[in-house]
Amino acid sequence: MDEREARMALSCVVEGGTPTVADAVAEYGAVEVWRALSSGKTDSPIARRARGFDLDPVKARALTDGQRFVIPGDDEWPAGLRDLHGCEQVNQLSGVPVGLWVKGGGHLGDLTRRCVAIVGSRASTPYGEAVAADLAVSVGEGGCAVVSGGAFGIDAAAHRGALASRTPTVAVAAGGLDQPYPPGHRALFERIAERGVLVSELPAEQHPTRVRFLSRNRLIAAMTPGTVMVEAAVRSGARNTVTWATVLHRVVMAVPGPVTSANSVTPHRLIREAEAVLVTQGAEVLEMLSPLGRCAPRPPSDHRPVDDLDPDELAVFEAIPGRGALGAAEVALRAGLPIGRCLALLDDLERRGFVAQNARLEWRLPPRVGRGVAGREGE
Amino acid sequence: MDEREARMALSCVVEGGTPTVADAVAEYGAVEVWRALSSGKTDSPIARRARGFDLDPVKARALTDGQRFVIPGDDEWPAGLRDLHGCEQVNQLSGVPVGLWVKGGGHLGDLTRRCVAIVGSRASTPYGEAVAADLAVSVGEGGCAVVSGGAFGIDAAAHRGALASRTPTVAVAAGGLDQPYPPGHRALFERIAERGVLVSELPAEQHPTRVRFLSRNRLIAAMTPGTVMVEAAVRSGARNTVTWATVLHRVVMAVPGPVTSANSVTPHRLIREAEAVLVTQGAEVLEMLSPLGRCAPRPPSDHRPVDDLDPDELAVFEAIPGRGALGAAEVALRAGLPIGRCLALLDDLERRGFVAQNARLEWRLPPRVGRGVAGREGE
Repeated sequence: MDEREARMALSCVVEGGTPTVADAVAEYGAVEVWRALSSGKTDSPIARRARGFDLDPVKARALTDGQRFVIPGDDEWPAGLRDLHGCEQVNQLSGVPVGLWVKGGGHLGDLTRRCVAIVGSRASTPYGEAVAADLAVSVGEGGCAVVSGGAFGIDAAAHRGALASRTPTVAVAAGGLDQPYPPGHRALFERIAERGVLVSELPAEQHPTRVRFLSRNRLIAAMTPGTVMVEAAVRSGARNTVTWATVLHRVVMAVPGPVTSANSVTPHRLIREAEAVLVTQGAEVLEMLSPLGRCAPRPPSDHRPVDDLDPDELAVFEAIPGRGALGAAEVALRAGLPIGRCLALLDDLERRGFVAQNARLEWRLPPRVGRGVAGREGE
Repeated sequence: MDEREARMALSCVVEGGTPTVADAVAEYGAVEVWRALSSGKTDSPIARRARGFDLDPVKARALTDGQRFVIPGDDEWPAGLRDLHGCEQVNQLSGVPVGLWVKGGGHLGDLTRRCVAIVGSRASTPYGEAVAADLAVSVGEGGCAVVSGGAFGIDAAAHRGALASRTPTVAVAAGGLDQPYPPGHRALFERIAERGVLVSELPAEQHPTRVRFLSRNRLIAAMTPGTVMVEAAVRSGARNTVTWATVLHRVVMAVPGPVTSANSVTPHRLIREAEAVLVTQGAEVLEMLSPLGRCAPRPPSDHRPVDDLDPDELAVFEAIPGRGALGAAEVALRAGLPIGRCLALLDDLERRGFVAQNARLEWRLPPRVGRGVAGREGE
């Protein structure tokens, strides 16, 4: 058995994220670990399973299903997964996967070179789904692949947004790739596989279990430089992905929502407790993932005509009441300027359309200078 | 003229927030400053105004309107205002007010001993108004007075929420208290004045101007230990109040909202740039304002029956598939436990209702243990 076959065999008898096995593989190599397990010299549930194991049917099934097995060192191997070696355990899980079962027309290595995870609740709201899809579209247009878990709700919205922006997307499953989970997403997974990839730590015929979801979440967090949580109630698997992202020192981002929405409780808590940065749009996500110095565009320009006034001009302009008119002496008083200087400024401001005189030669605002025009807005 | 009268006179001829005058009053006392201004020895717009000034009609008007004039050292003087002395200028404004015109049945000193400012957009959304009112109700029930600006929108919702919780509230105006601004809030101001107070730096008959709104905002920020921004678009006066709160090292809080709402742009930006802490409910606001160690209650309990299982029990429980059943040997294999130990645990888990056996003596989940009951929820 060569290294690849040994890893393939290990992926069939060991649950993903078993730290002792991952450590042993890192230290002795997969061939050595497989030999020790299958030799009959040790007795453990895994060893017993390994002894009776036949790799050929697994390989045949994978071939039939169009799956390939990717291992560390391969071009397609996501670089980020190396950070799972020796990292803190979450729910007693940890470790670099022995390999990944991959299916689809995309190149997993290329796709994860510039990517982001978008995760959240399965029981999402239309708001959350719209935001997840929008984020996916705009990070996709920014050349960033979306990685998610293929679940109902936010995951699906993120994948669909990515597909809409014609950017390949990556779905990481918690079971074998031959059996789409949830089954209702069969068509979605087929679309993802056209130009993106489906990924799993588990061989064909394996169903998702709770621990496999948790183990899968560590892969999503590890293969991306950042995770965005869109919606999640108090108890949510997406929280677990964020925990992995935090443990792995990834960028954690969260999208706020109405404080009245149960689905925004977890994003708000993450932001409030400074575990996540608040993001509202794709540009901000891209900024967080970019080298220092590339900033998201700031929201719409704040410039108003009144911003062009120097302090004395502004003092005069602001001394003019919103309703009614004042004599120049009173304007000067209110502006705190000598009357001569004030008169000169008033003439200039009149010429520029900021103020006007009435028939009694008192100063007032011209009709067209209201709130929002010159921007006389005090509160 | 005594100190109080000198301050009263100064409040009539000097715009609030004029740093030079505030500094002179702090250094020489109001009597001395008034004497210098009104003596005719200096010539400035303020001095000219001071020379022709007659205090008696102002006092008479205030009396008629039921106003009192509160100065530093008085019981009613809000302690926080002292921090305006020598603080950084905002829009060239700064300084402790020479005095405050106050109207209403409340005691300004008492009310500001435990209070919070709730501010935001005049052009608010129903969401923002509901949140502002809810916050005001719950901080009010927590014994905390709400301070705001009496404007349309968020300010009004906050005042009304406070009134609903039967907690006195404080409205700080940008003009004389004899002329309610906005005029449509006359009835609201009357209700506020019953047990709370209306406050202004300006004497009767003065209209609000842009600079007076800005100057008023510094009072709201200074007389409270914290400011909550509920909603504000890119350009908003509430942003100015927050700037004052930041300059004065007050606690700045902001309420998130839908990222699709223009009115949540400024709160989100404040949170994102770490100028404000995200708050979602009154308890969190009270926590921010409380001495260290008093924490807001965490959202609903996360406890599930499965949390009571020890790691081995959990491994066995999780080895049972969501659908179908498994023989004990396979369960032991999946759980990574010796078969004897696994059987003992299965018996115990069956007794406690976590697992069940079918007719073929295979192990499965009992019908009532689904998602949400024992909390088998993987993602």
